[in-house]
Amino acid sequence: MLCTAFNAVGFNWLASPAVTELEMVVMDWFAQMLKLPKSFMFSDTGGGVIQGTTSEAILCTLIAARDRALECIGVDNIGKLVVYGSDQTHSTYTKACKLAGIVPSNIRSVPTKIDNFFTLSPELLKKTIEADVADGLVPLYVCATVGTTSTTAVDPVEAIASVAKDYGIWVHVDAAYGGSACICPEFRHYLNGVEQIDSLSLSPHKWLLSYLDCCCLWVKNPGLLVKALSTNPEYLKNKASESQSVVDYKDWQVGTGRRFKALRLWLIFRSYGVANLQSHIRSDVRMAKMFEGFIKLDPRFEIVVPRRFSLVCFRLNPGWSDLQKVERLNRKLLEWLNSTGRVYMTHTIVGGVYMLRFAVGATLTEERHVIAAWKLIREGTDLLLKEENVFCCER
Amino acid sequence: MLCTAFNAVGFNWLASPAVTELEMVVMDWFAQMLKLPKSFMFSDTGGGVIQGTTSEAILCTLIAARDRALECIGVDNIGKLVVYGSDQTHSTYTKACKLAGIVPSNIRSVPTKIDNFFTLSPELLKKTIEADVADGLVPLYVCATVGTTSTTAVDPVEAIASVAKDYGIWVHVDAAYGGSACICPEFRHYLNGVEQIDSLSLSPHKWLLSYLDCCCLWVKNPGLLVKALSTNPEYLKNKASESQSVVDYKDWQVGTGRRFKALRLWLIFRSYGVANLQSHIRSDVRMAKMFEGFIKLDPRFEIVVPRRFSLVCFRLNPGWSDLQKVERLNRKLLEWLNSTGRVYMTHTIVGGVYMLRFAVGATLTEERHVIAAWKLIREGTDLLLKEENVFCCER
Repeated sequence: MLCTAFNAVGFNWLASPAVTELEMVVMDWFAQMLKLPKSFMFSDTGGGVIQGTTSEAILCTLIAARDRALECIGVDNIGKLVVYGSDQTHSTYTKACKLAGIVPSNIRSVPTKIDNFFTLSPELLKKTIEADVADGLVPLYVCATVGTTSTTAVDPVEAIASVAKDYGIWVHVDAAYGGSACICPEFRHYLNGVEQIDSLSLSPHKWLLSYLDCCCLWVKNPGLLVKALSTNPEYLKNKASESQSVVDYKDWQVGTGRRFKALRLWLIFRSYGVANLQSHIRSDVRMAKMFEGFIKLDPRFEIVVPRRFSLVCFRLNPGWSDLQKVERLNRKLLEWLNSTGRVYMTHTIVGGVYMLRFAVGATLTEERHVIAAWKLIREGTDLLLKEENVFCCER
Repeated sequence: MLCTAFNAVGFNWLASPAVTELEMVVMDWFAQMLKLPKSFMFSDTGGGVIQGTTSEAILCTLIAARDRALECIGVDNIGKLVVYGSDQTHSTYTKACKLAGIVPSNIRSVPTKIDNFFTLSPELLKKTIEADVADGLVPLYVCATVGTTSTTAVDPVEAIASVAKDYGIWVHVDAAYGGSACICPEFRHYLNGVEQIDSLSLSPHKWLLSYLDCCCLWVKNPGLLVKALSTNPEYLKNKASESQSVVDYKDWQVGTGRRFKALRLWLIFRSYGVANLQSHIRSDVRMAKMFEGFIKLDPRFEIVVPRRFSLVCFRLNPGWSDLQKVERLNRKLLEWLNSTGRVYMTHTIVGGVYMLRFAVGATLTEERHVIAAWKLIREGTDLLLKEENVFCCER
């Protein structure tokens, strides 16, 4: 609310030095909390910036990578650039690539499998890249995800970065949701290999007690971002900017105007402290684990993919062999659950499997809510299965 | 503040019907206040959306125009697309064009002259387009401005649209600042010709009592926007979206997540009412006029370009013929004024002329502040001219 009321317009340092400098401070603090390598911090040669959403973070870094590549191969060859992700990469990735002028047919969506829990396979990525290179195309950018939207799968960052290195590909890690957990030592390993990547984005508005829109982006080489995104109109010229001793965040983002978003993170970090933020993450994970336990104890249900964070992907399957019938049953269950107005769940389909998504994440969620949700799910299940039986008998 | 606290994530209608539906209502209200043609309203076949900043509004419409064109000429011909603006178009326009993959050498910046008050000349635009067509290039998009950043110049929308029509060029009007004044009948003529354009953006955070970031964008053909920007991941699929009877605003913008921004405009419109908003605009203009009067009465000063809204562009010129000396004097004056901490002004250089910019626009500005600023300007001027004389005599 403070951030809204200030209405500071910190497009460049001069317009509001505090807006810029506090952002630099909190982004370095946050990098320390995540144990990111120094190379992503202002205290070294990197730096961070608060974007609106992951879409913007990806778009900005993609443009930086694109312009670096076009400088070598010429702007006329934009049609040769190829970008990579998995079929689980967020839908906004494809959109950002299209926005940046990447030819749609050059946006590779590497298929994932349930065997490796819907993560991007480095081997398959390598094969795809090799085929493109053989075709005379230019590999540009790969987006790895720590906590995919559908099932919170975690791509193997280190192995992907190793593959990409050989081709000079820009590696971005989208840790919008899962990244927040990495402030806890027991989850930090999901970011292993981060020292080899070019950029990382993480949205505290998803799981770190911030409000929309707050997406943190760190880059190793801010110079590339600034080169691709800078503007220099006369009315914004000033001694501080010209001395190159300050950061003008307008050159790190799509738009010009920007709010005092750092204030939010500053308040969150200062008022909770790292230990309390870790507790918040652990408490959500504990509740998700509890729910997972309930599911595992009821033989009518199954966990479709292993739980990583605080999302449980499950389905009702009373041992039926007709999988279309199973899907219909789960669709009915979801509709029934949401129609009660007492819970709200969503679904996804991954690897052809329709599943329900139980997400713990709202600030006020307590164990009793999880227990109530589980009771409701059983109630709905009993009802639906009874109907099915009646229907079967009638038939 | 309410908007912040809600943390509604209205990416699609289902996620929060109120977020979407209130936005549709206020955008139609606002269109009515501006006397926009029906074709820009949801009540007809158009519609509006709240973006973050003008940069995003331009980027989204540019992508819609680009993809429509590429469908005809093929994606490999992206290098042939040409976009147009004047040398006074906002710097973010060039940036948005680069983001969208327009080849930098195809971004035309038509030069303006002081003779026509730094507005985009339709004749020159036509000549530029004709030359491009003769070169086998494809004219794509033109951005006209109602209230340029440097001097609040107003491009002739109607004449520009007439030129563009013959080539099927998408016409966007950036009325970020000047557009707000058009809710007053005496300023509405600046939007004449709007019925011929494709899209219009206006940022109430500049001059209509809203906070950052709030940029209103209206389009005549939302289908083109949706076609270029839609995503359709499984986890967001729902009956309402599939029935195509609702608006999913995620397909009208760069990112996926979005806040309850409509609430701000709703509160502004409902709590002030049109008449009070008009008074607010008129009061700022009256104060700027008063300042303009002060300048005109002091022979040491000159108004460089005619005032259109609430910005006065002036310079100190004690009849010196050495224009570099005049520029140095004005630079010194600006530095002195801002160093007092009692006012804050900026400068610009247009048509080679260095000028100071006196902007009335802060909510709490009253006549007495304008009078105090003018006194301060005279104080600085007296001081500087005295120094100059001493310096001259010493020499």
